[in-house]
Amino acid sequence: MPPLLNPRLSLSLKPLFLFSQSSFAPRKFQIPRQFVSVKSRTFSSLASEQSSDNGGTGVGGGRSGALSPSLVTEDFQRIDVNPPKGTRDFPPEDMRLRNWLFHHFREVSRLFGFEEVDYPVLESEALFIRKAGEEIRDQLYCFEDRGNRRVALRPELTPSLARLVIQKGKSLSLPLKWFAIGQCWRYERMTRGRRREHYQWNMDILGVPEVTDISGSILIAEAELMASIVAFFKRIGITESDVGFKVSSRKVLQEVLRCYSVPENLFGKVCIIIDKIEKIPIDEIKRELNATGLSEEAIEELLQVLSIKSLTKLEEILGGAGEAIADLKQLFSLAEKFGYSEWIQFDASVVRGLAYYTGIVFEGFDRDRKLRAICGGGRYDRLLSTFGGDDVPACGFGFGDAVIIELLKEKGLLPELSLEVDNIVCALDHDLQGVAATVATKLRGEGQSVDLVLENKPLKWVFKRAARINAQRLILVGNTEWQKGMVVVKVLSSGEQYEIKLDELE
Amino acid sequence: MPPLLNPRLSLSLKPLFLFSQSSFAPRKFQIPRQFVSVKSRTFSSLASEQSSDNGGTGVGGGRSGALSPSLVTEDFQRIDVNPPKGTRDFPPEDMRLRNWLFHHFREVSRLFGFEEVDYPVLESEALFIRKAGEEIRDQLYCFEDRGNRRVALRPELTPSLARLVIQKGKSLSLPLKWFAIGQCWRYERMTRGRRREHYQWNMDILGVPEVTDISGSILIAEAELMASIVAFFKRIGITESDVGFKVSSRKVLQEVLRCYSVPENLFGKVCIIIDKIEKIPIDEIKRELNATGLSEEAIEELLQVLSIKSLTKLEEILGGAGEAIADLKQLFSLAEKFGYSEWIQFDASVVRGLAYYTGIVFEGFDRDRKLRAICGGGRYDRLLSTFGGDDVPACGFGFGDAVIIELLKEKGLLPELSLEVDNIVCALDHDLQGVAATVATKLRGEGQSVDLVLENKPLKWVFKRAARINAQRLILVGNTEWQKGMVVVKVLSSGEQYEIKLDELE
Repeated sequence: MPPLLNPRLSLSLKPLFLFSQSSFAPRKFQIPRQFVSVKSRTFSSLASEQSSDNGGTGVGGGRSGALSPSLVTEDFQRIDVNPPKGTRDFPPEDMRLRNWLFHHFREVSRLFGFEEVDYPVLESEALFIRKAGEEIRDQLYCFEDRGNRRVALRPELTPSLARLVIQKGKSLSLPLKWFAIGQCWRYERMTRGRRREHYQWNMDILGVPEVTDISGSILIAEAELMASIVAFFKRIGITESDVGFKVSSRKVLQEVLRCYSVPENLFGKVCIIIDKIEKIPIDEIKRELNATGLSEEAIEELLQVLSIKSLTKLEEILGGAGEAIADLKQLFSLAEKFGYSEWIQFDASVVRGLAYYTGIVFEGFDRDRKLRAICGGGRYDRLLSTFGGDDVPACGFGFGDAVIIELLKEKGLLPELSLEVDNIVCALDHDLQGVAATVATKLRGEGQSVDLVLENKPLKWVFKRAARINAQRLILVGNTEWQKGMVVVKVLSSGEQYEIKLDELE
Repeated sequence: MPPLLNPRLSLSLKPLFLFSQSSFAPRKFQIPRQFVSVKSRTFSSLASEQSSDNGGTGVGGGRSGALSPSLVTEDFQRIDVNPPKGTRDFPPEDMRLRNWLFHHFREVSRLFGFEEVDYPVLESEALFIRKAGEEIRDQLYCFEDRGNRRVALRPELTPSLARLVIQKGKSLSLPLKWFAIGQCWRYERMTRGRRREHYQWNMDILGVPEVTDISGSILIAEAELMASIVAFFKRIGITESDVGFKVSSRKVLQEVLRCYSVPENLFGKVCIIIDKIEKIPIDEIKRELNATGLSEEAIEELLQVLSIKSLTKLEEILGGAGEAIADLKQLFSLAEKFGYSEWIQFDASVVRGLAYYTGIVFEGFDRDRKLRAICGGGRYDRLLSTFGGDDVPACGFGFGDAVIIELLKEKGLLPELSLEVDNIVCALDHDLQGVAATVATKLRGEGQSVDLVLENKPLKWVFKRAARINAQRLILVGNTEWQKGMVVVKVLSSGEQYEIKLDELE
């Protein structure tokens, strides 16, 4: 390691520093030390101070006399400072809300004994292509990667779950109880204030079949899933007067279609069309159903059945022997045992818009009917075989992060979440900043959060910052006290102030 | 709500149920109730039991006699059950490790008073296109969306941070201390076991300039950032004998290049080339530097300076007046105050591979030199102006989730994380499953996690499951006890067993 450098280098470098300020050295950020009496020291006030320091050029100083040449001369461009259309940034205040929501998703999942999983946000496109005309298919964010593979940003989590379960095969012990909180993408037209990404909380139970026992007394997985959503609502202050679940079974529709000898392979398509019943005009629904080959008579009957909102009425029509009725009766009976029967109601019109459901389907709605569905799910006992795996009985739900926030706003239930830091630590003299660092390190070692003031700032500024970050204590490191090995502690809520030895501080 | 249904419907539906099992109704999952003596009840053992129940067809039973027609007849395909090349699933065991790691990222960030933020994983491509020949550019996962916008999966988080800071402008109070944990994507060749996505923990401080004071005693933000990484290492059991930080400043390179009158706009490019010094042969480095226009003499000098590993030696070469020396001296002095001087060393060869750094740069490495850089960061005071915003002094680091896990494995420090559930609740009789649901609801209401057994299973099966999920207690709901309003509690660690009234259970 003996670099015999050309003497020219060390010789020629030194003189150049004489004018380095004006030519090649980085611009200094001239942040005034004096506290100026502005309400809060913001980015823009800082910028304008800078530009006047620079002689009032008024361009904010950022590019005058600057170095970092490749950046400035080659790459300058005015970018769009907004996130891509339909997507979100999460600045601190929004992130606190997201973390609050996810915390409750996770806590409920934990209370129900579920394990967390996740999958790639980028999946093979084939995983999401089903032929039933689902809305989701036309909304895929898909593209070809650099290796010519067709890939897509996941629009939902369930197909990835199915893929992983097939892959894991023998190593999994049933039943599985898994949850995930993942971002999903849909390229929707930006009408009605919809976004193109959202986070979705999923809970799924695999390996527990629907009604299986002659006694009809088996606890069904669907009841457990709805119990978990109810537990979530209760935690965040939502009651059964705010929301409810509409519940039905895909078997209702199956039984009607069979009666009209509708070919089995149309079932998925018919479900997708019916799911749009509240979103598009009824004549359009009829036209689409007719286009699949359903007779006008069948369509009329179908729409009649779908308008039924009472299980008794449904039983009159379908008879008591069918599985649809048995499943639904059992679910309503269990809801009572779980204590949430006030939350659920039968509604034959609920079918959900995904092709893979096979039994019970449900969706959460706000009783004021101002918002889209809050969550939805059901049983999908056949999904794995569509991917070439062995089927496993399965059910689950998806619960998005957008509609629930709208509902909380409507109800005045949004939590007030603010940054809270235990301590703000500040040196009162330049040469004590190393000591301030020591103080911060000590407190952090004891699990306390510390905002360390990294610049020389007037006390007034420090108090304002302390208020902004909701600091509980201000720790001042000053010369007089430090000569005695002490620092000043000010409890900000009470104004109480005392001196304490550094090693006694905790 | 009086649907005057065609009488044909209700009449014709009923007889059909007589043969619904064989034609149209969903296949039942014939899960045997008897506990069979296999080690653990897995997915595959279940499947093979099913197929023999179905008459030994040997296809797992998934598609024999099944309904759900649109799925089966239209969409059957054998999909690839692996996640796309270079990406990961997170089954429960991997997710526990990820959550453990992220928990420590978050805890350290909280202890240092940082606020969490996030940005879209899909950003405008323009945000990442810089002209310095960065590796990152050729590795973008980019495509055109359905609205003909050029977008990319983010390869890093810093450009999004810069975009958001420009957007927020006046509303932000400086200094900002923000952290993020986000997934980033790079389409790399899959050599050397690299993946194409990873999660990255970033911490950034905006609004704190580098050395600014005549006294030279200002606490610098870089020192605080490195302190936070050290705190993280310590929490997870990594010491200064395992890892270290190589530290330098981009100004070292600037001062050398100026000496050879290298045009300013080549600075970024030269940095990118030099960053590859340990990855590609030195002759290739020289060839690339030569191609930018550097003389052979300049290249030799440059490489000599880059080999310096001592600040004293650097000072001999560059002289004591330059900013590079002053900045570095200050940082090493502060590291002592923070108590991590054992962790850091000067190394002129560190420049980092991103064009935007302007001052101090550092990277974390394992002392056994088996792995790639663990983390890296530095000062980037000019990034905002390249996007058309006003510059704000800034520094930060990125810390990936992959290399650290490799290091923990190497050192035998990977934590053992297993699923832990407080209670497993099981009804001993069919008709008590509603009661079991009530028990579960009560315990969950008190904050205890409960795995509720959703099927009728033999006790032996329940004990095995209890062991698998590390349940602390088994709660059995049996007829004899329930007649007295009691349930049986078995503490699984001690074997202790007692009866308790439901309302006294907690």
